[in-house]
Amino acid sequence: MASLGEESEVRKRMIDAEDKGDQAVLGSEVDSDDDRLPEQNIEQRTKAIPQGTEQEPHILLTLLSPLSPRWRNWVIRGIFTWLMIGLFCLIIFVGPLALMFTTLVVQVWCFKEIINIGYSVYRMHGLPWFRSLSWWFLITSNYFFYGESLVADYFSVIFSKSEIMRWLIAYHRFTSFTMYIIGFVWFVLSLKKKYYMRQFSLFAWTHVALLIVVTQSYLIIINIFHGMIWFIVPVSMIVINDVMAYMFGFFFGKTPLIQLSPKKTWEGFIGGGISTLFLGMLLSYAMCQYPFFVCPVEYSESEDIFNYSCDPSPIFRPQEYNLPETMGNVFALLGWKRTITMYPFVLHSIALSLFSSVIGPFGGFFASGFKRAFKIKDFGDVIPGHGGMMDRFDCQYLMATFVNVYIMTFISETSPQKLLQKVYMLKPEQQLQLYNMLQDSLIARGILQP
Amino acid sequence: MASLGEESEVRKRMIDAEDKGDQAVLGSEVDSDDDRLPEQNIEQRTKAIPQGTEQEPHILLTLLSPLSPRWRNWVIRGIFTWLMIGLFCLIIFVGPLALMFTTLVVQVWCFKEIINIGYSVYRMHGLPWFRSLSWWFLITSNYFFYGESLVADYFSVIFSKSEIMRWLIAYHRFTSFTMYIIGFVWFVLSLKKKYYMRQFSLFAWTHVALLIVVTQSYLIIINIFHGMIWFIVPVSMIVINDVMAYMFGFFFGKTPLIQLSPKKTWEGFIGGGISTLFLGMLLSYAMCQYPFFVCPVEYSESEDIFNYSCDPSPIFRPQEYNLPETMGNVFALLGWKRTITMYPFVLHSIALSLFSSVIGPFGGFFASGFKRAFKIKDFGDVIPGHGGMMDRFDCQYLMATFVNVYIMTFISETSPQKLLQKVYMLKPEQQLQLYNMLQDSLIARGILQP
Repeated sequence: MASLGEESEVRKRMIDAEDKGDQAVLGSEVDSDDDRLPEQNIEQRTKAIPQGTEQEPHILLTLLSPLSPRWRNWVIRGIFTWLMIGLFCLIIFVGPLALMFTTLVVQVWCFKEIINIGYSVYRMHGLPWFRSLSWWFLITSNYFFYGESLVADYFSVIFSKSEIMRWLIAYHRFTSFTMYIIGFVWFVLSLKKKYYMRQFSLFAWTHVALLIVVTQSYLIIINIFHGMIWFIVPVSMIVINDVMAYMFGFFFGKTPLIQLSPKKTWEGFIGGGISTLFLGMLLSYAMCQYPFFVCPVEYSESEDIFNYSCDPSPIFRPQEYNLPETMGNVFALLGWKRTITMYPFVLHSIALSLFSSVIGPFGGFFASGFKRAFKIKDFGDVIPGHGGMMDRFDCQYLMATFVNVYIMTFISETSPQKLLQKVYMLKPEQQLQLYNMLQDSLIARGILQP
Repeated sequence: MASLGEESEVRKRMIDAEDKGDQAVLGSEVDSDDDRLPEQNIEQRTKAIPQGTEQEPHILLTLLSPLSPRWRNWVIRGIFTWLMIGLFCLIIFVGPLALMFTTLVVQVWCFKEIINIGYSVYRMHGLPWFRSLSWWFLITSNYFFYGESLVADYFSVIFSKSEIMRWLIAYHRFTSFTMYIIGFVWFVLSLKKKYYMRQFSLFAWTHVALLIVVTQSYLIIINIFHGMIWFIVPVSMIVINDVMAYMFGFFFGKTPLIQLSPKKTWEGFIGGGISTLFLGMLLSYAMCQYPFFVCPVEYSESEDIFNYSCDPSPIFRPQEYNLPETMGNVFALLGWKRTITMYPFVLHSIALSLFSSVIGPFGGFFASGFKRAFKIKDFGDVIPGHGGMMDRFDCQYLMATFVNVYIMTFISETSPQKLLQKVYMLKPEQQLQLYNMLQDSLIARGILQP
């Protein structure tokens, strides 16, 4: 039995806790047992998660030892910012496949970070099977999403050459579902009375992580297939907006923007937005010149390589636009043309930069709210001075969906070639049937001469 | 300050709790404040959730008052079982649209039950905006899923007649994404420091509920479109398996099956499985006779109604199968034919009944594990004697996905008609281009004479 002094201490903390909301520290002292319910003390539980801003490479630390810790951190952060930008350019230079592979690596890393927080919060120690289960679900959903559309739509030419691959494509959904069912049954069988609640919570946690990480990286890869420009411009916009909002905030920031991120200001938000708009248009203009960036990634069967050259789609070809009436009059007075020549993509970039500067930051607010909820500073420590992968990619996630939806709604058109691929998957007699029906319809509409 | 006696009581309970795993009751006494972290005492929090087996209609109670409570419950459960079966038959009789509407209603109800548990667990009282947000996400995801495929694939004939509808279809993904973004921003803006952790937990809870409820009911509706038989047979199999496993367990049950559901036995599991196999084949055989059940739901443009008559697909037409060698010999000796005539669908029903009797119960185990985790007996009280909607539909959820994947993998083929619909969405000159390419290819392969 504990002494009376200790008891009143505990009791006092309990009463204090009543006024502290999420910060309740109820029973943190006796929290040495792992078989307990979550969240008597979040801080206690998540303090073991590695924090990026604390971890720094040893060699750099020695070199920078004359500097004060604050400056040291800034220098390191700067160095790694430029290293990342350099690496990004290098990957782009290598080509779209390298970019897709990088997306996959980042995805797996982000998943690992989110899951690790879950483990800490729900005290995974002792939870049966959970680490393996999470990875199994990650493999399953990747198999499903990548197979579903990529294999069927983009790589099918390569893959349909082999018998096994053709089988895998035909039974793709069935295989994915079977894999999921294996995970599901495995989860149910792993349930242990003592841990029910934490097991279900982590099951949910895993599924939400998959929803965020796998679907988004899948969409990013789909976007890359439409041309690398659809990846590079949006990603750069988010980075530009981050940096410029920080700069404007630093020099002119006065009015706080949102309680969640006390350092963000309205001045930074607006300045960042305007900069993103103009720099985004500039970048778009520059990239529109190069087929390497604007051509969809397509496999050339005849040459057996991926094709980076093409006849660019109309949105990447210069077009003349009429200026608005009054603006045109002013231009005419100055002896200029009433029209302006531009790539349509540059106009589309306006929509992208609006989204990245208005909605993008909410991805960041969401992530910082999440970090505050679980009392962590960073998601991990993989990038010195920056924190975890998730800390760098938090705003990118919503952007990928936006770009994908934008392409699907306003840009992409079903091409006769793609549809023809589907026609070839019918039986020969059905192909003939379709041919005859199409012929009749074309003649009836006067498009084809009988 | 509390008296010393109370303090030692609290301290004692804390020490007890160390050995209790998920049952920790730390600080339950001071748990009167709503701004606390979850799960010091789950039981305390979820006890307000209405429990079906406790609620019974007043008039029945009066009529059945001579019976003991145990028997009264059985009678009520029986009455409502038959009422549900009757209602189910009535809805089927009205037709597929009524069935789809019912699926939607059940979906919304299940979502409500799951969300209500979340509210109780995380003490929603005081959480800003959460109830509205959950419903907003429910509307958004329904709008997305139903629109995505139903409107585009099945109803497009009706809807494309009106200008507004055509606009809605063209911008469907964009609208859905905008709706989601509104919800997302709304959530971020509603974050309040005191509640961060619970707000994020409920955000995740809502998304998992949507994943379970909306996607499944969407798949169910897709299945109905392939013919009502794809809905009725699987649903009945789950019910048959439930009932027969109970019967076999009741009469022969000895060997316990799984710790999660102590009442389930191996005898029930196996007896239920065998009964499901045979009764499922019988039901399938019976239903294959009626076009009303086997015809895909299609809108007939000429008659402006839904079409329930068709030329049944080959799997619903009797076919002769050769018996295995030895069995054929025995049949031949008896003077019978060496072949057997059967609907191919009856053979497919074997796969369905295997899934419903082997994997289906895991849906039930999952649900009962979930209920144990949160210390509730039922999900709700909407069906007297049975509990909530979720209690009745827990095993149905996985089944819907299985049937859908099964149809997509083994049954459904792209029809020339459906593909032609897509061809007609191209520009006229592209249609002509496709026509010419197809012509060349058909001639090259010798399918079409030049």
